[in-house]
Amino acid sequence: MTDEAGEDLPFQRVALIGLGLIGSSIARSAREALPGVELRAYDSSADVRSRAERLELVDVLADDPAEAVAGADLVIFCVPVGAMAEAARSVAPHLAANAVVSDVGSSKGPVANALKGALPGALIIPAHPIAGTENSGPEAGFAGLFNNRWCILTPDQDADPDAVARLSAFWGKLGARVEVMDAGRHDLVLAVTSHLPHLIAFTIVGTASHLEAVTEGEVIKYSAGGFRDFTRIAASDPVMWRDIFLSNREAVLDVLGRFLGDLSQLEQAIRGGNGEELFDWFSRTRAIRRAIVYEGQDVAAPDFGRTGS
Amino acid sequence: MTDEAGEDLPFQRVALIGLGLIGSSIARSAREALPGVELRAYDSSADVRSRAERLELVDVLADDPAEAVAGADLVIFCVPVGAMAEAARSVAPHLAANAVVSDVGSSKGPVANALKGALPGALIIPAHPIAGTENSGPEAGFAGLFNNRWCILTPDQDADPDAVARLSAFWGKLGARVEVMDAGRHDLVLAVTSHLPHLIAFTIVGTASHLEAVTEGEVIKYSAGGFRDFTRIAASDPVMWRDIFLSNREAVLDVLGRFLGDLSQLEQAIRGGNGEELFDWFSRTRAIRRAIVYEGQDVAAPDFGRTGS
Repeated sequence: MTDEAGEDLPFQRVALIGLGLIGSSIARSAREALPGVELRAYDSSADVRSRAERLELVDVLADDPAEAVAGADLVIFCVPVGAMAEAARSVAPHLAANAVVSDVGSSKGPVANALKGALPGALIIPAHPIAGTENSGPEAGFAGLFNNRWCILTPDQDADPDAVARLSAFWGKLGARVEVMDAGRHDLVLAVTSHLPHLIAFTIVGTASHLEAVTEGEVIKYSAGGFRDFTRIAASDPVMWRDIFLSNREAVLDVLGRFLGDLSQLEQAIRGGNGEELFDWFSRTRAIRRAIVYEGQDVAAPDFGRTGS
Repeated sequence: MTDEAGEDLPFQRVALIGLGLIGSSIARSAREALPGVELRAYDSSADVRSRAERLELVDVLADDPAEAVAGADLVIFCVPVGAMAEAARSVAPHLAANAVVSDVGSSKGPVANALKGALPGALIIPAHPIAGTENSGPEAGFAGLFNNRWCILTPDQDADPDAVARLSAFWGKLGARVEVMDAGRHDLVLAVTSHLPHLIAFTIVGTASHLEAVTEGEVIKYSAGGFRDFTRIAASDPVMWRDIFLSNREAVLDVLGRFLGDLSQLEQAIRGGNGEELFDWFSRTRAIRRAIVYEGQDVAAPDFGRTGS
């Protein structure tokens, strides 16, 4: 089947389970990029459902999971990773036989196991778009969220290649660059590039807010010295992040151990007045920033462009 | 004396020693806000001097420190904190008797001592504008850098109130909000709001770049998951930051200890599967972000506004 422009549609009817930042961004992006696709959705929160209704995000906003997945050839779970199993169980009896089942969770090994346990025999292709903002809820989503961001698929070795290709095409239409990776490797890479940074940011923002010697007001007032950069990701959804740390526990603890070792080395350099070691370390980190900007994964403007210089 | 608009000028002739990001931003801001003030400058790097010449940042770009400070009633040292003593010594014989001496260093107790040692009897009012970007050099400066940012003055208790008032007026004209604080308190507050965040950012960017199990290419590619936020301040000037950590050593090690204690607590929560503790911690940190945005110390747009959503 093709859309109005005569292009092949990777899927005809897509069901989104969960309409937070990511679910609602998929809906908005698909509306723009794949207008021929029928969009259906369900969220376990009645409040979110009514807000999503007002936003007119999808064609059918279902009152129960069964209605959402009826006849869908792609079902995407967009819920915190700790809620995947229950969400999957709720649609299990109603899933179409040919449906591709996917998700957007930030840990992939544990989520794949949760989906397999709840949906035995289903065609499961886990996925993770590396995109987001610190905001949550259906109002926070927008159509450009996945533009030029990577989306990692972690199919099992024996997964149907056609299903992988169609899911890749779907994400490609939404603007993402798609990569296929082993689930375990994904979980290690993301522990470094996302989970550890969030843990550090949550920690330091908490530390700064409950020092006895410095008031919270002072921390807020003088935050432009660097602290404010950490507060953005530390404002991310607490349930989502609680689940990620519990779910990807081993990889997170592993990279945290490496970080603590390096921090201890720099602490010793400061304590011992070893300026050369500090200088060498700080010189190397500049190159990483340049490479990230060069690869299009961040803006080149100083101060993230927020000073309007 | 008044400028063309008939306003009082806090100073008639301002000498900037050092023309990096901050020195050149003071020059550009003063050009716009205080056109009646004569600006003179010197930088110990001949290369920086010739680049500054091309940028036409000041009225007199001096070839030696003596020429820069001749007849100046305000001299501001805009060099890394470890270079303050030498810079001050170089101007000592040429300083006008009525000159107010200030600086822009990120640690204040040690810098005050360095300036006092090099310039006995001078009228020293240390200062620190809480503003900057990750870029360095005279080209990186811009006129709006101090708009709505705090500038902290740390005069001694017996400092001349008129000199404090004039320096406050100068920074006010440049767009800054001025606060007067004890030097020791400044160094503790900045250890929390700026120095610890930079240390953490330098560390984690280094950690991520030399893991054996994850390549640097993967870290760069998937950095939009959170890591890229840390790379901005980890791209800051290595000499400046080496000097800050060595100069404000005790306060930095103190707050680092608090941070490590908190991190260890969250590590135990992850290890023990204590979701409630994680959720509680992550819920509190959201409020800090909101307060920083409310106080005008960061932009409200999601993702620092860089996604253009």
